[in-house]
Amino acid sequence: MCVLPAAAHADLALEGDVAYEAYRDALVDAGLLVPMGVQGLYGRGEIFERVVNGFDAYATRTAQPLDYEVLRFPPLFARTHYEKIDHIRNFPDLLGSVHSFTGKDREHLAMLGKFEKGEDWSRDLARTDVMLTPAICYPLYPTAKGMLPAGGRGVDLLGYAFRHEPSDDPARMQLFRQREFVRLGSPAEALDHRDRWLDRGEEMFAAVGLEVERVVASDPFFGRGGKVMKASQQEQALKYELTIPICSREKPTAIASSNYHLDHFGSVFDIRTADGAVAHSACIGFGLERIALALFRTHGFDIGAWPAKVRDVLALQ
Amino acid sequence: MCVLPAAAHADLALEGDVAYEAYRDALVDAGLLVPMGVQGLYGRGEIFERVVNGFDAYATRTAQPLDYEVLRFPPLFARTHYEKIDHIRNFPDLLGSVHSFTGKDREHLAMLGKFEKGEDWSRDLARTDVMLTPAICYPLYPTAKGMLPAGGRGVDLLGYAFRHEPSDDPARMQLFRQREFVRLGSPAEALDHRDRWLDRGEEMFAAVGLEVERVVASDPFFGRGGKVMKASQQEQALKYELTIPICSREKPTAIASSNYHLDHFGSVFDIRTADGAVAHSACIGFGLERIALALFRTHGFDIGAWPAKVRDVLALQ
Repeated sequence: MCVLPAAAHADLALEGDVAYEAYRDALVDAGLLVPMGVQGLYGRGEIFERVVNGFDAYATRTAQPLDYEVLRFPPLFARTHYEKIDHIRNFPDLLGSVHSFTGKDREHLAMLGKFEKGEDWSRDLARTDVMLTPAICYPLYPTAKGMLPAGGRGVDLLGYAFRHEPSDDPARMQLFRQREFVRLGSPAEALDHRDRWLDRGEEMFAAVGLEVERVVASDPFFGRGGKVMKASQQEQALKYELTIPICSREKPTAIASSNYHLDHFGSVFDIRTADGAVAHSACIGFGLERIALALFRTHGFDIGAWPAKVRDVLALQ
Repeated sequence: MCVLPAAAHADLALEGDVAYEAYRDALVDAGLLVPMGVQGLYGRGEIFERVVNGFDAYATRTAQPLDYEVLRFPPLFARTHYEKIDHIRNFPDLLGSVHSFTGKDREHLAMLGKFEKGEDWSRDLARTDVMLTPAICYPLYPTAKGMLPAGGRGVDLLGYAFRHEPSDDPARMQLFRQREFVRLGSPAEALDHRDRWLDRGEEMFAAVGLEVERVVASDPFFGRGGKVMKASQQEQALKYELTIPICSREKPTAIASSNYHLDHFGSVFDIRTADGAVAHSACIGFGLERIALALFRTHGFDIGAWPAKVRDVLALQ
């Protein structure tokens, strides 16, 4: 059942909103997550972080033979780049636009007047040059403009992604970390990257006791037109997810996903292969908070009692 | 001079904007920072991250005997908490308010119409429940409401902070990481925390070859009224910085700072000591990107050529 820490590894007996709330409350009671007064926003306790860092280090070891270039982007990127990637058309409800105050003393007094009366002072702010990052590989593509080396580029990323989707489901956070591996190159190189990493991901999850299912998936495209986009994405099998039940058997959670972007980013940001063709790209993203939640769900809240093999892989000794 | 990587450890010969631009360009040429198309926003290269992580691990070892509680907050916090801390009065020009789209298909079409005409589509967004975090200890205080244990609480934090201050100075990033240690307790406990950590900070920097100066400092309060606030803060000696020249001898950069908040957060968020008094608080923050920049400035861009003792402390073997 989802309710008690001691039974966190037992069968999933609840479904729906009560299941989300029960598991969230249990995580909070155990000090793994700290509520921050907003749905989907949490501080992370020490044990939660040790599990996240343990899996992250495991991904580093797995990727080491592939000799990727390491880059780390902060959780904001340029508005001008945001405006090129179609996110405003496809996922406007999930975006995060950063606004600040750009006036002088007089405008400041006017804004404070609204603030003190409990009115919406945010209308006095102006857009800045930055947006929150919806996926941690987005900031990479604009920096990759130009010609790739022969064989393309493999890049290792880690960072926070933002999605404006307040929820009681502890696995649906507004800010969460992704560990990503990206391949820029020919269509064959991109597809090979996706397929090999789906296999590797399954093996990695098996090594920590998580039985995942590989499914063709689609992104949550917005509005009436979104249905057509979803169907098209699924028909082309561009996105795969590795899923596992966390709070719900009926709606298992994706803990990793791999997307083949075709030449979308290559054509938007003018990235070319060594032979001059528009580059294709693919990425695999590991959702570190979701993986930690799946581990706590599967093995219980007491990491000292996890199977020795799992503790060994995650360096939780 | 600031211009060439090979001479990055030599005397600072340039001053002003050219010095900032020259050092930034040298960092970019060396692959340490990756421009993201916005002033003060950078990807971090592998070597830069190794230095950041090396100093962060050194701080962990230094703090270990103090047995702090470890918490990690993501770079956003609740708007309702933001509205209680006076930041909107004192630093409105630095704030980051997160806005998103909350309409349906019809409003979406209207916003896309503006977007396609190159108009300001951001006016069609609404404020969300979250703000970017201006300092990584701010999210802690609202979660600390209630009575502290005897002896107070010591908390270990690490995270991204946002300040809207676009700049060519590579040490003035819009998003940067702070490693912080916070003490909540009596006035004496808070002051003791600040003073001991300033000593520890000086010793830590000496161990990695950074000669810092301890100075009484003030925060960049906004507007005409800000001058009074600055003078008052300096007169009470509430804030100290450890500074070192990075791009400028005339304007050395703070790479760590320690603030005594008096009972500000205790009274705003109703935090009480074990004997029922309003809690005082103090923090020390290490600016991880600035520390890395000071290290590259002092020892050069080739970490293999850094003094053996420094490489040892930072585990750069």
